[in-house]
Amino acid sequence: MGKIEDLKLLNGWFNEFSSIGQNKIGGVTRLAYSFDENNMHETFKKICEKLCFHVKSDSVGNTFVSLKESDSRKPYLIASHLDSVPNGGKYDGVLGVIGGILILKWIRDNNIDIPVKVCAFRCEESSAFGKATIGSGLITGKIKEKDLCSLKGVREESLYDILKSKGYLSQNYSVEALQGYIEMHIEQGRVLYDNKVEAGIVTAIAGSKRFKLEIHGRQDHSGATPMSMRKDALSAASEVILEIEKLGIQESIHSTVATVGEIHETPNALNVVPGFVELGIDIRGIESSSINSLISQLKCNIKNIMNKRNLSYELIPTTLGEPVKLSNQVIGGLYEAAKKLGIGCIKMPSGAGHDAMEFADITKTGMVFIPCKEGISHNPKEEADLSDLLNACKIVYEYLKEVLP
Amino acid sequence: MGKIEDLKLLNGWFNEFSSIGQNKIGGVTRLAYSFDENNMHETFKKICEKLCFHVKSDSVGNTFVSLKESDSRKPYLIASHLDSVPNGGKYDGVLGVIGGILILKWIRDNNIDIPVKVCAFRCEESSAFGKATIGSGLITGKIKEKDLCSLKGVREESLYDILKSKGYLSQNYSVEALQGYIEMHIEQGRVLYDNKVEAGIVTAIAGSKRFKLEIHGRQDHSGATPMSMRKDALSAASEVILEIEKLGIQESIHSTVATVGEIHETPNALNVVPGFVELGIDIRGIESSSINSLISQLKCNIKNIMNKRNLSYELIPTTLGEPVKLSNQVIGGLYEAAKKLGIGCIKMPSGAGHDAMEFADITKTGMVFIPCKEGISHNPKEEADLSDLLNACKIVYEYLKEVLP
Repeated sequence: MGKIEDLKLLNGWFNEFSSIGQNKIGGVTRLAYSFDENNMHETFKKICEKLCFHVKSDSVGNTFVSLKESDSRKPYLIASHLDSVPNGGKYDGVLGVIGGILILKWIRDNNIDIPVKVCAFRCEESSAFGKATIGSGLITGKIKEKDLCSLKGVREESLYDILKSKGYLSQNYSVEALQGYIEMHIEQGRVLYDNKVEAGIVTAIAGSKRFKLEIHGRQDHSGATPMSMRKDALSAASEVILEIEKLGIQESIHSTVATVGEIHETPNALNVVPGFVELGIDIRGIESSSINSLISQLKCNIKNIMNKRNLSYELIPTTLGEPVKLSNQVIGGLYEAAKKLGIGCIKMPSGAGHDAMEFADITKTGMVFIPCKEGISHNPKEEADLSDLLNACKIVYEYLKEVLP
Repeated sequence: MGKIEDLKLLNGWFNEFSSIGQNKIGGVTRLAYSFDENNMHETFKKICEKLCFHVKSDSVGNTFVSLKESDSRKPYLIASHLDSVPNGGKYDGVLGVIGGILILKWIRDNNIDIPVKVCAFRCEESSAFGKATIGSGLITGKIKEKDLCSLKGVREESLYDILKSKGYLSQNYSVEALQGYIEMHIEQGRVLYDNKVEAGIVTAIAGSKRFKLEIHGRQDHSGATPMSMRKDALSAASEVILEIEKLGIQESIHSTVATVGEIHETPNALNVVPGFVELGIDIRGIESSSINSLISQLKCNIKNIMNKRNLSYELIPTTLGEPVKLSNQVIGGLYEAAKKLGIGCIKMPSGAGHDAMEFADITKTGMVFIPCKEGISHNPKEEADLSDLLNACKIVYEYLKEVLP
């Protein structure tokens, strides 16, 4: 566990992934179940096989790694994901996976008898199919196969059909009984960075409620249609977008956020009054009451905007995830481990969703946050310090040794 | 010139184009220099060859038709276009072209000695390359070849390269000296339809000033970025869109209109705060002072919005077309012809741009508008009555006979 060698290892593994899905400006696009995500998993397998770990894929494409081929004891699972948003950063997900490898190596090198598996999940980001944590959700039973039928990618093919065509879903993929679940991840916010804290112990993960809003206007000639005769779907959408921003600011005292991240206009031509707009709305927070109050105000305001403009619309809920509390026992254990190691840390909620959410009700679940530069994530400029990842690994490793029976 | 036979002819020609580029909901997509626009011109040529007319293409792809292979006299040009917006209607442009064929047939059948050519232009709509009336603009010298280098289609290839790769621009394509230019076109507004008037004699064509607005925000994680730390390009764009609508309404007393018809957001993902937005802005009117006043207010308001939100932006003019007055002589002549024939008509401005704009300063230019149902255009529901087209043809034919030397 020499610091320099460990950093060299982490750096080497990190670099093996670097060029996958990379564009000219340094961003990476590794969409779920794409060629690039497959490449990430293949690369992960090669790294692990070189370390003589046992590698296994499940029937939804998640990759599991362990020291022994079989072990009768229930394992601890250390996991994260290898996909990315379009034009995203290289640290999101990847750090948790390579951190897991390092811990597994330490366990072997130091001959610690503890059953640990490391896993890289598929499709954690919602960018590809409009729904997050698919790989972890399927194996924990939170997502059912029938749910995949309505999830569609850019090519309008359902995720169910895509998985079937790749030979997935052919065998049982339920995750085995676990002793615990731990995930290391970049914070994706600026709390640790701004406060110069080395690590965050996550107490709860924000719930995410998502909606699709379809606005039906009337497509008309932009030159020959007087302003008073228009039914402009984009102007109506603009009012909604500003309303969502206003409500998000209003509820931000409860750490709630509200975002329109996606807009599709039809026919999207310079000389045509917009006839149809679809918005993707994402509302998150750790307090259900704040989220729900925002949503009920939003529904009322959308109705008023559309009535005023005489437009029809449909507001369709797509994800209704509640906030998730993590295990007090794990939170306390990780916090004590950090203190023992002299690593500065704070307890904090997570604004972003993570695969850990899917495990919180089936096993003792915890998370360690790694600071990221200026809090920037889902962006080519995303950056984290591998020595902070090393600290997170040390905290998790120390915790695992402490809970050894 | 039996009414029933003429309607049958127009109907037959119209139907030959019907299925080209048609989608399930009846809309047509015949983008400039696409397979479908080529198909429109090929169909037009076949119709004309069957009628034993002389057909010739120029070196930008416009199709010219005449009775004789050559004629030393300067011709009158009757013309319109065969392309469409995405998911547009079947009447826009096509009626003016088939109306021209009917008039040419009448001239031959009645042995009237008047030099007339009919032309179908390329790329009248700005949807494909962000600029309108390319085919007519090139042959009248309003658009230069070098202008085509900066015009790009969806595949990011320049229009110059596209034309070169098709073998165009290889020969002189300047239009010959003309005696006059006349265009028949659907109104694309609801003035004639609502007032139950059979034809409109166009007095002026609205000028169109177009801009591209690029807004640079910061792409961030939608869950982990507090509202107060965001630089949301889409929220800023929404303010601009509503501002443009407000200014359009304010200037509508001068028949000015303002539209955002195009929006592109990056990365356009549900879980990412929008980092970049590009808007396509279209401002039109027949009074330069109103258009200019709107634009100067808009520039000031955009600046304020971006300053308030601390975002950078660029407002790039793409088209700066002035309003165009048509020939008083032609307006008067067409109006008298309609009166003589007992066809109800009014003089009116055109809110939409037309190929006629490109000819107004090089020859005596006029236009006849045909009513369209509910004023709907650039829409699959676009509809016009072929008997109204027949009236327009009669007006033009009568006018041509009157001006015979």
